Formats: sequence, structure tokens, C-alpha cells
Amino acid sequence: MTQMLLDKVFRPAFRNDLLEAQHDGARIGDLAFSTDSFVVHPLFFPGGNIGSLAVHGTLNDLAMCGAKPLALSAGFILEEGFSMESLWKIVCSMRDAVGDIPIATGDTKVVDRGKGDGVYINTSGIGVVPHGVVIDPSSAEPGDVVLVSGEIATHGIAILSVREGLEFETVLETDSAWLGPLVDAVLQTSHVRVLRDPTRGGLASTLHEIAVSSQVGIRLEEAAIPVRADVRGACEILGLDPLYVANEGKCLAIVPPEDAEHALAAMRSQPLGRDAARIGEVVADHAGSVRLKSRIGGERIVDLMSGEQLPRIC
Amino acid sequence: MTQMLLDKVFRPAFRNDLLEAQHDGARIGDLAFSTDSFVVHPLFFPGGNIGSLAVHGTLNDLAMCGAKPLALSAGFILEEGFSMESLWKIVCSMRDAVGDIPIATGDTKVVDRGKGDGVYINTSGIGVVPHGVVIDPSSAEPGDVVLVSGEIATHGIAILSVREGLEFETVLETDSAWLGPLVDAVLQTSHVRVLRDPTRGGLASTLHEIAVSSQVGIRLEEAAIPVRADVRGACEILGLDPLYVANEGKCLAIVPPEDAEHALAAMRSQPLGRDAARIGEVVADHAGSVRLKSRIGGERIVDLMSGEQLPRIC
Repeated sequence: MTQMLLDKVFRPAFRNDLLEAQHDGARIGDLAFSTDSFVVHPLFFPGGNIGSLAVHGTLNDLAMCGAKPLALSAGFILEEGFSMESLWKIVCSMRDAVGDIPIATGDTKVVDRGKGDGVYINTSGIGVVPHGVVIDPSSAEPGDVVLVSGEIATHGIAILSVREGLEFETVLETDSAWLGPLVDAVLQTSHVRVLRDPTRGGLASTLHEIAVSSQVGIRLEEAAIPVRADVRGACEILGLDPLYVANEGKCLAIVPPEDAEHALAAMRSQPLGRDAARIGEVVADHAGSVRLKSRIGGERIVDLMSGEQLPRIC
Repeated sequence: MTQMLLDKVFRPAFRNDLLEAQHDGARIGDLAFSTDSFVVHPLFFPGGNIGSLAVHGTLNDLAMCGAKPLALSAGFILEEGFSMESLWKIVCSMRDAVGDIPIATGDTKVVDRGKGDGVYINTSGIGVVPHGVVIDPSSAEPGDVVLVSGEIATHGIAILSVREGLEFETVLETDSAWLGPLVDAVLQTSHVRVLRDPTRGGLASTLHEIAVSSQVGIRLEEAAIPVRADVRGACEILGLDPLYVANEGKCLAIVPPEDAEHALAAMRSQPLGRDAARIGEVVADHAGSVRLKSRIGGERIVDLMSGEQLPRIC
């Protein structure tokens, strides 16, 4: 749906090279610029809330451009009657998530009761891309290696577990986190062609977009893709494919083969990258599509899903 | 209400110098950065719609920092079932309003039916402040002259006329417009201490904020403040004070007395500034407050209004 709106409405109307790049953020000279609105439901969930998510989401979009964040903005749309106590908790989570990056400018609007859902938050961010860093979703080349920084599908299942009242042996928390230090570590050791955080639409949708932008094929090894056992179990119960479930603290890196080991070691040296793995490769065949070699040896096409598998996940 | 949230929630939590500046946008080195969410109701009104308003609003916030816009972002929160035809109209208005400034990055979220009101739009913008330009809401000095670029209160009354079904002899259109060229003309001829666009809360609230930030008094001459006759009439019928009604294509400039004539002439040389006027002065007395000399000679305090006079005006 979002892809359709982008292809049929926003890109045709706003036609410009920056939007065509289809990156997590736009690159303008040595600046990176990104925006994201957050409508997650429920507002509070294990390991975070809409506030921390809104900060991590936009900071990560900047990190995926290889940028160091300069400042964030925050725009709040509050539903009339929203609890000040909840707002204060959300705002404090934003403060904690942002660390020493300033929330430099903001805005608040109030809408009538029933015309919102508590609070919606937009964050936008600007960052500076260090000289020489060029991360471009259309630059993957056959032979490149696909890395993921950790176990996938955790955020989506954490949200869903609250919505559906699922019980786990331990509380399943979102993976929402800022990937800046992990990305820095990788960029210091390796040449990186593509970085993306597989949020809405999950790993599958993000890799599909890269395959299309770069006009290459991507082959994944199902057995190599890290998924927590409880998350996998929940996916099975709910009939969800973890490849399509949202992440909020994971990144994909596509690197030349000679840099793969260094990049993987750099990820694993970071707390957020302990479970990083090599999950596939870029190929010249089947350009524009992603294929998965399953555990039992078969191969299937990983298609772009139409419609949102999980609405309001971020 | 917004001021209360800012003072009691956002500023204490996000404490940083950029936010303390209380400007329309934040200044970060030679960059200006601003954000605004738009929830105007109705979405379409004479002379514009939520899309053109969202573009002008953020571009003007950059202009009020003296910045030349580099790029905008656009974040849409769509209510499920919102008409694609309406969205297309809104997006085309944004394209027309933005001219050759790129909408460089964007985001779309969909919320359930009944959890939105058609569409809410956030725009954020980045711009570059030319070397030597310092516009600072805390820099007004006694003796300075207060200029306004044209007739006030038109936007608010245009919106209200649709909501309330008021009839005018001619259709009353919003004044929503981009002030960049007008600001450029003023900055080329004059030293300018403060620039602000008096949107939500109108002229009175904006001047009140300047009086507080600069710790000066401001005296206005009621007879000098330009208001269209039909807008004045509508305000009387509705029991509204035009000083508190929103504008979306007007700016206030505070300039040293020796630059006042040049600045006024520069405004009047621009299509948007034909009705520009000198409306008051900055004084050392009654620091932190705004007083109005009325047509009949009396003087009254122009207080900050508690609560929103007109909700969802932008």
C-alpha cells in the first residue's frame, strides 16, 4: 500500500532526484535528512514506547545514510484528553533515547477526542555524512555478501504479543535501539555499499527494494537467518513469516566479499551485534528479486507483500 | 495550552540551548531546522488546503530564521478509507507550493478508521542562513519599530467561514503564502533584529513571546494595524479579537528606528507586502508585556490568551 502510494502519488507529484533515491533518508550535499511519523498501537509495549521508538527510528534512518546525527525535531499530535502522565513518560523516554543529540525544534497540535489515538509523533533528523562515505541502496553488486546485525522479527512480535495477549515464558521486548555505534564500527573497518534497517515490511521487503534499486538478485540461506526461538514459535502460531515482521534495532549491510569477515567481526564486537550473521549473497541472476534457499533444500521466491502484514507496528 | 506543554513538559525534558531559543526554527551552525504538524479542519478551504498550508508553514518558519530553504520532508498520517482523489489534490498543492525546493524525504502511515481525520501532515525543513544574518527573537531593543507585512487575521477567518457557514460578499481566501521573497527584500535593505510569522495565536501571542524573550515592552497603535473590513466585521459577529486570529502569509519585523523606512518600503515593493504597515514600537517600560493604544485613545494590556481561541486552524 505504502509502495503503491509512493509509486502512484508521491513520486509522480514531487518528482526529484532525492526522492528517487529511495533511501531511508535523503542525501543533500554532505547532509542527511530523514522523517518518520509514528502511530504505533499500543503506545506502551515491553522494552519501549512510541517516544523511544520515534527517536530510534529517525536516528537509525540517519545512521543508514552513514550520517552522524546533528539534531532531531519532534512534532506531537495529541488527542484531547490524553493523559499528561503518559505524555510525560513518553517525553522522558525520548530524552533518554536521544542521549546528547539535541531535540532542537518541535511542535504540538491538539485534535478533538476521537480524531486521534492518544498521541502520534513525527520525528525528523539531520546529520552530517563524513567525507568519503557513500552508502547507496542502488550500489549492490553480484558477489557482495548480505549481513544482518542480529535476530530478526522481535519488534513486530513484541507489539503483537501485547495486542493479542500472547504469553511467553519471559517477556518479549522490542529490539528498538540506536544503531549509530554499530554502524560506526562497521564503517571504520569495511567498505559498505548498502545499509538499511528492515523496519516495516521486515527483512524481505527491504531486500526486495535493494534488489530492485540495484538491479541484482539476492539469495538468502534460511538456516543462516537468526530468529529467536520464542519469536519463531510465535510466528508459527500466528501464521506470520518472520522475514516480513518489523525490526527496530537491526540493520542489513551489503559489503564486497573481501570485506565481509571484517564487517561481521565489527558488528559482533558491538552489544547490538552479538548475533550478527552472514545470511546471503548478491547474484547476477533473477535481477530485481529475492530468493530463499530453505532448510530442506528447496528454493522459493521472497515476494513483496501487498498490504500491511501488521498495521501500526511503528 | 501549547505554551503550558512547552514550559512544563517539553522544555524541562529536552533541555537544550536550541529549544530554549524559542524561535520558529532552530539554528544549528549556519543551518536552520524547523518542524510543524498540520491538523487543519476542514482539509480544503478557500485559497488553499492542508497541503499548501503545510508547505508554506514550514518554509515560512525557515524564512523567519533568515534562511534559504534547502529541502523539505513530508510525513502523512492517513485515515483508512481516505479518498485517493483528495490525497492527489493535496499532494499537487504541495508540489505547486514548494516550487523548486525539493521534498526530499517522506513517510506515510495509515491509521484505522475513526483514529484520524482524513489526513494529518508533518513537514520539516532545513535551510541555510547566509553569513552575517542573525535573527533572534530575544534581540528587540527599546526604540525599535514594529512592522507587519499586511492585513492580519485573514487565515483564521477564512477557515472559520467554512466551518461556520459564514457568507461574505466575496469569497474570503486564506492568506497562506511563502514569505521568502519578501523576507529577502527586507534583509537586503535593512538590519532586522526579529522576524516572526504570527500564525496560531495571532499577532498578540507572537509579540507577547518577543516581549518576554527580549525583556522589553511593546506598544501597538490599534489604528495602524491593517485588517480587512470584511475580516473585521466577521470578527465582530463572532466575538473574536483579530489580534489573536491566525495568519499564514504575514510576518512581523522588528527593526532599528533608522532602518524602519527602508524595511517598510522593501515590504511594500513585494506583492505580499503591499499593505505593510508600521504598527508600534519597542519600549523600555512594562518589560515582558504588550500594550495597545486603542482608536479612542485608551490603553489596554494585550495578554496571552489561555486555551486556543480557534482550535485546528493549522
